[in-house]
Amino acid sequence: MKKSLGAKTLLYPTPVLVVGTYDAAGKPNVMTASWGGICCSQPPCVAVSLRKATYTYHNLCRRKAFTLSIPSEPFIRQADYFGLTTGRETDKFASTGLTPVRSELVDAPYVKEFPVVIECRLFRQFELGLHTQFVGEVLDVKAEDDVLNTSGMVDILKLKPLVFTPDTQAYYGIGGLAGQAFSIGEGVTH
Amino acid sequence: MKKSLGAKTLLYPTPVLVVGTYDAAGKPNVMTASWGGICCSQPPCVAVSLRKATYTYHNLCRRKAFTLSIPSEPFIRQADYFGLTTGRETDKFASTGLTPVRSELVDAPYVKEFPVVIECRLFRQFELGLHTQFVGEVLDVKAEDDVLNTSGMVDILKLKPLVFTPDTQAYYGIGGLAGQAFSIGEGVTH
Repeated sequence: MKKSLGAKTLLYPTPVLVVGTYDAAGKPNVMTASWGGICCSQPPCVAVSLRKATYTYHNLCRRKAFTLSIPSEPFIRQADYFGLTTGRETDKFASTGLTPVRSELVDAPYVKEFPVVIECRLFRQFELGLHTQFVGEVLDVKAEDDVLNTSGMVDILKLKPLVFTPDTQAYYGIGGLAGQAFSIGEGVTH
Repeated sequence: MKKSLGAKTLLYPTPVLVVGTYDAAGKPNVMTASWGGICCSQPPCVAVSLRKATYTYHNLCRRKAFTLSIPSEPFIRQADYFGLTTGRETDKFASTGLTPVRSELVDAPYVKEFPVVIECRLFRQFELGLHTQFVGEVLDVKAEDDVLNTSGMVDILKLKPLVFTPDTQAYYGIGGLAGQAFSIGEGVTH
């Protein structure tokens, strides 16, 4: 029997994405966001939703570019910190000791120490309500060698990305391989 | 050292969402999608992107409503099957033995056996390219009692949702608790 939980933003899993932008003065900034995901295959696009109250919102509107850096489990504290503080008052790179890298493709920085980064130019911007959705066209994805499998594809068990749970507000890791997509479902019919 | 993987739709984790709609004749249909996520807190909204080639795309345009049912690990084969076949030719509920439930809030069915369901009315629709992004306003989230913790919140370790990996095209489970959000990052600065 299902129980009603109300009109809430609950969805599982949600990602932990660190959005990189430059401010008006050229200071690199990062913030953590979980309202986002892939939204188009061609052109390849990802979406991330931000409140106008964030520093990143204004940076992104001005620069028309952003990166998504995906923190691995060992960087959980830094990723959480990036969501606790505002770049208006803090240089989050300086205060954590992480390294901003200027993208060669878009006008935005990414986090050197995080194993996967996605470089985006702003493609569309939609006002939805409290959040504005920014759709970025992916110009490149870069990954550390040590998170790739022998075929050169990202191995999520090496990447160890974080999962965010909206209601309990916690981070989880990734579990084991459950099955191959577009394959394990064959023959399930009766 | 980071290696360029090209302009690809890679993001971790991505969810496994089963989109429920009715067709013109009232037949309930489901398809699996991983291009989606939460996109606004107020109004509470989720986004899912679909290709025009899908049966669900046309159902959703007509009915202006959809549900997202979140399969748990034990339903991995059915969830995969829902992405392997088209509702044009198949009654996917009949062929898997799963049960369609008519939402009392929106003109769409959900999967009774899946532990969490999200009922949405179509709020916005954006043409991005190969995919159209459908933004649904969440009218209710319903969950089985046995996936809730003692505070009535969804426990992701009880829910056991699937994670999809875009490049290796596989499903993974959820790992252990890694830390509490808006808390574990305090004091990380040096």
